[in-house]
Amino acid sequence: MGKTDDSNENWGAPLDMIGKDLLSANDRIAQEIRKDIVKMGSILVHLTSSPGSGKTTLLEATVRAMGKRLSIGAIEGDVATENDAEKIRRMGIASQSIVTDGACHLEAKSVRRALGKLTENDAFDLIFVENVGNLVCPSGFDLGENYRVVLISVAEGDDKPEKYPPIFRKADVLVVSKIDLLPYVDFDVEKVKTHARAIAPNIRTFELSAKTGEGIADWTNWLTSLVPQK
Amino acid sequence: MGKTDDSNENWGAPLDMIGKDLLSANDRIAQEIRKDIVKMGSILVHLTSSPGSGKTTLLEATVRAMGKRLSIGAIEGDVATENDAEKIRRMGIASQSIVTDGACHLEAKSVRRALGKLTENDAFDLIFVENVGNLVCPSGFDLGENYRVVLISVAEGDDKPEKYPPIFRKADVLVVSKIDLLPYVDFDVEKVKTHARAIAPNIRTFELSAKTGEGIADWTNWLTSLVPQK
Repeated sequence: MGKTDDSNENWGAPLDMIGKDLLSANDRIAQEIRKDIVKMGSILVHLTSSPGSGKTTLLEATVRAMGKRLSIGAIEGDVATENDAEKIRRMGIASQSIVTDGACHLEAKSVRRALGKLTENDAFDLIFVENVGNLVCPSGFDLGENYRVVLISVAEGDDKPEKYPPIFRKADVLVVSKIDLLPYVDFDVEKVKTHARAIAPNIRTFELSAKTGEGIADWTNWLTSLVPQK
Repeated sequence: MGKTDDSNENWGAPLDMIGKDLLSANDRIAQEIRKDIVKMGSILVHLTSSPGSGKTTLLEATVRAMGKRLSIGAIEGDVATENDAEKIRRMGIASQSIVTDGACHLEAKSVRRALGKLTENDAFDLIFVENVGNLVCPSGFDLGENYRVVLISVAEGDDKPEKYPPIFRKADVLVVSKIDLLPYVDFDVEKVKTHARAIAPNIRTFELSAKTGEGIADWTNWLTSLVPQK
């Protein structure tokens, strides 16, 4: 599980609209980021999903649950506002914002820049990169993460891995979010896990509600287990 | 409200990653589609939203509610499967599928081709185009629609117009969907409407649940009012 800087051969599969050169430039920077992260003794976790699946809310719940045990930093990607970065900062967490001005995904280049600013005067056990809300565009872009986490909220429907396979192909973790809504929606958790595993056989799955706290302990225990011993 | 083929000057605002020529070629085809739609005595309604906001489910509820009063056709955009087109076909509705093979939005060119096939032997009062689930990429691409409808489900959070403004800038209608979940989520309908109106002052809004049927009559009455008298 997880990526090291030499396990990179499956990354950067060519997308329809994006030149191969652009992707390999992105991959080179992503590898450099992974080397820097190792040097820092940190772990980079990339959160990606549709808009409104609960990435920022999960991050807030994660900080609440483990913010005193570990030092956490965040890089927040958004199309137009810095709202997410501000939400995270209000929790006392160092956060850098990347506003993409309309672009539908982050690239390694802007993550490297944000990471430089974030870690200029501080060290972190765990750094999250929250991508722009999008289930299509981010799939081809390695951001130098050690783990890529895809969220699906139970309100989105259980056909999402089947309908948007590329983003799951590169995922290490599937988080089924907003499980407090399960009684009120038609959503088959096992179906989603089965489809996700058909696409990414080694995918690890969590089911949780950032609202009620259900499942958050499993998630934070896993995150804690990733952090290098110092 | 609505677009005619000469009210096109606000379309095709340049996006970061897309050349101006590509957009104006798209706009030219979109204008031709609008002319063809007028000739057919039909109306083209473009549905766009995040993945899982309920576009296909709304379409199914719409067909159930008005399928006998009007003849309805559908063009279903998807990244990887024909599932949505098949769902619609199972309801006895003529449907053409556009599989984008990874691309994050539809273009007028592929809509024109699908429309040609759809209308080869049939006439429709109302034709829906369901875009790929994406709140970012579709915003710059006129598909020749008469009305552009953006859906937000109440499970997605009420910050979406503020965080993804471009898609609302070009919208004629905002549908707040899955309102049966309102008791279980933090979602301020008035806040969303206010933000959407700040971006698109003339936007028309509907609040509905395709599951319970609440609000569907207002929606179908509006759709019926669009259809040219024959």
